Amino acid sequence: MPAALSKILPFAWPVSFLSLSKLGSPIRTKSFSIRFFSAIVKSKHFCEALVYRSHGHYEDVIKLETFTLPPLGEEDIRIKMLAAPVNPADINMLEGTYAILPELPAIGGNEGVGKVLDVGSKVNNFTPGDWVIPVDSEFGTWRTEAVCHAASILKISKDIPLLSAATIGVNPCTAYRMLHDFEHLKPGDTVIQNGANSAVGQAVIQIAAAMGVKTINVVRDRPNLKELVEKLNCLGAHCIVTESMLLKRELVSIVKDLPKPRLALNCVGGQSAGYLLDYLQYGSTMVTYGGMAKKPVPVPAKAMIFKNIKIHGFWMSQWKRDNKHDISKQEAMLSELCELVKKGRLSAPACTEIPFYDYKIALDATMKPYQCSKQVLCML
Amino acid sequence: MPAALSKILPFAWPVSFLSLSKLGSPIRTKSFSIRFFSAIVKSKHFCEALVYRSHGHYEDVIKLETFTLPPLGEEDIRIKMLAAPVNPADINMLEGTYAILPELPAIGGNEGVGKVLDVGSKVNNFTPGDWVIPVDSEFGTWRTEAVCHAASILKISKDIPLLSAATIGVNPCTAYRMLHDFEHLKPGDTVIQNGANSAVGQAVIQIAAAMGVKTINVVRDRPNLKELVEKLNCLGAHCIVTESMLLKRELVSIVKDLPKPRLALNCVGGQSAGYLLDYLQYGSTMVTYGGMAKKPVPVPAKAMIFKNIKIHGFWMSQWKRDNKHDISKQEAMLSELCELVKKGRLSAPACTEIPFYDYKIALDATMKPYQCSKQVLCML
Repeated sequence: MPAALSKILPFAWPVSFLSLSKLGSPIRTKSFSIRFFSAIVKSKHFCEALVYRSHGHYEDVIKLETFTLPPLGEEDIRIKMLAAPVNPADINMLEGTYAILPELPAIGGNEGVGKVLDVGSKVNNFTPGDWVIPVDSEFGTWRTEAVCHAASILKISKDIPLLSAATIGVNPCTAYRMLHDFEHLKPGDTVIQNGANSAVGQAVIQIAAAMGVKTINVVRDRPNLKELVEKLNCLGAHCIVTESMLLKRELVSIVKDLPKPRLALNCVGGQSAGYLLDYLQYGSTMVTYGGMAKKPVPVPAKAMIFKNIKIHGFWMSQWKRDNKHDISKQEAMLSELCELVKKGRLSAPACTEIPFYDYKIALDATMKPYQCSKQVLCML
Repeated sequence: MPAALSKILPFAWPVSFLSLSKLGSPIRTKSFSIRFFSAIVKSKHFCEALVYRSHGHYEDVIKLETFTLPPLGEEDIRIKMLAAPVNPADINMLEGTYAILPELPAIGGNEGVGKVLDVGSKVNNFTPGDWVIPVDSEFGTWRTEAVCHAASILKISKDIPLLSAATIGVNPCTAYRMLHDFEHLKPGDTVIQNGANSAVGQAVIQIAAAMGVKTINVVRDRPNLKELVEKLNCLGAHCIVTESMLLKRELVSIVKDLPKPRLALNCVGGQSAGYLLDYLQYGSTMVTYGGMAKKPVPVPAKAMIFKNIKIHGFWMSQWKRDNKHDISKQEAMLSELCELVKKGRLSAPACTEIPFYDYKIALDATMKPYQCSKQVLCML
């Protein structure tokens, strides 16, 4: 596809390489059709991929399939996937319940790290051996190899742990953007967040600490609270409280010596989120990026009118789309995040490495409640 | 007070002219003290004012008192108040339950129109006979005369009805700012609002209509609905529905031919406000300026995350303070609103004129539920 086309149809090209036809039949995407050939057609490169051809329970719809890769175009790159996490949103996509859904058939997975194997004749910003991650969601990362347009991937440092690289593109980026795009935080400022033990929450603690920003962290009540407190303290949490302490307003005395937060980050919703508003200072913002409690955030009129609190949402997939015209913003963010990883100031969340072919174990584990470890498919 | 002081202490000077001492005793304000003299001290000019010296039920705390006016400074203006409405917020101030409270003793009333009687030697932008309204809240408009700094008042057109002038400074300004400051509305765009029969709601309908913007108006169910619909239609409402139609989702079919609203204006709260969110288009804003239902707005995570809906509040008093450094913005807004009044495109809400000395009737009427008419004290 010519470069101009990617400008006119910015979302056209990933679809073309991600969508799969039934064996041998053509797929028409938004702009053009590509013929995928079945494994029985002889070809130099092929891939194995976790494909879904309809929406439904993940166990029923996801299948390991083998495909011949399309030929390498002059602006294309062939990559070997190294590791790709299984996020709950990936499962929601299989089930057809997520806010964005690729055309079917599609390959599962939105995040992961790959290694460049081969580059097209007009590609000069990638070299075999480079580590790359997808620019956008819907890449289809649960596969062994891929051929994609050079503009659909971003180079990242190879000097970071593989699991950090595989998981850097969504959760740490979400944390980074929320800490940078809503309030101008200065060293000494305070941020309050619930769901502080989520992968995003852990990244928030670490990135905020690197910015000199203190975090007040709300976590669910649990038997092993002491261990969790120790873990989050090690990451740089300034203060950790439980949901029940929040609901009982015990937080008031605990945080009384801190400046009032300028920013609240909410992935829970319900009354837990509503109470966070009480602690915010005049003119601050609450950003919602999840709704684990499946209850709306109750926002009192007085918080909006007299405290000028702004209530916003954040979705990394949308940010990536909105900023696709200027990839330098994403590159700068990733570069900064990789530096934090190298300095030991941003660690990957707890991960369980699962061999690619044992993908069912990874999917099952992801859907179990109270998951403390991210399942990562390893293609090595 | 020198001009420089008003820049350094922008809120200092109104307080000095509004606060009242016990007869003959000095008041120390933020920056300086002023001695008010009792009526028994002979002076050329005096005023009668509705004063409260403590917070409590309005009947108990508000008293008509007579005071000598302070001498006219070289940057001061002496005005005769012509008319001043009684707004619910004024009563909340007497009761001590409002978000801002003047130092006590204080004169009631935040809004109204006066006529310039006399100007200080250094005042060159006002002439006797000009109509003026307060720049800020807490002016203390329930009085017959006042001496104030020239920077604390704004000139408005004399070619508009007295009741429009008396009520232009809060409700129409609130409507104007909400329609201009949150979304860039173009002719043909749609705004949805609840409490559409409130004074702000009526101003929203009229100002939006003048902008070529269509309004979807939600009102409470009531026996005389037909009359209300006719009245709001006359003001320029595009579509009027009741709360119960909103809750039953009957609005979907009614508004299906309209573009989805880019802006929702909420003065009710509770589920009524929550449902407004369903009709908004991607990336739009809900602005809350009241909470009549005394229930928080339930905001679902998906509205914020996947529809990028922003939830903000608006408070005219705060806007005036935030923009005090550049009074031209307020002047431009008032000029535009007065032009709409002159063209017959912005009428005052239904008002009941009450002689100043019958203030108790006006206060009682304001606190009755389902008030359809604004009480205006007339000092003429």
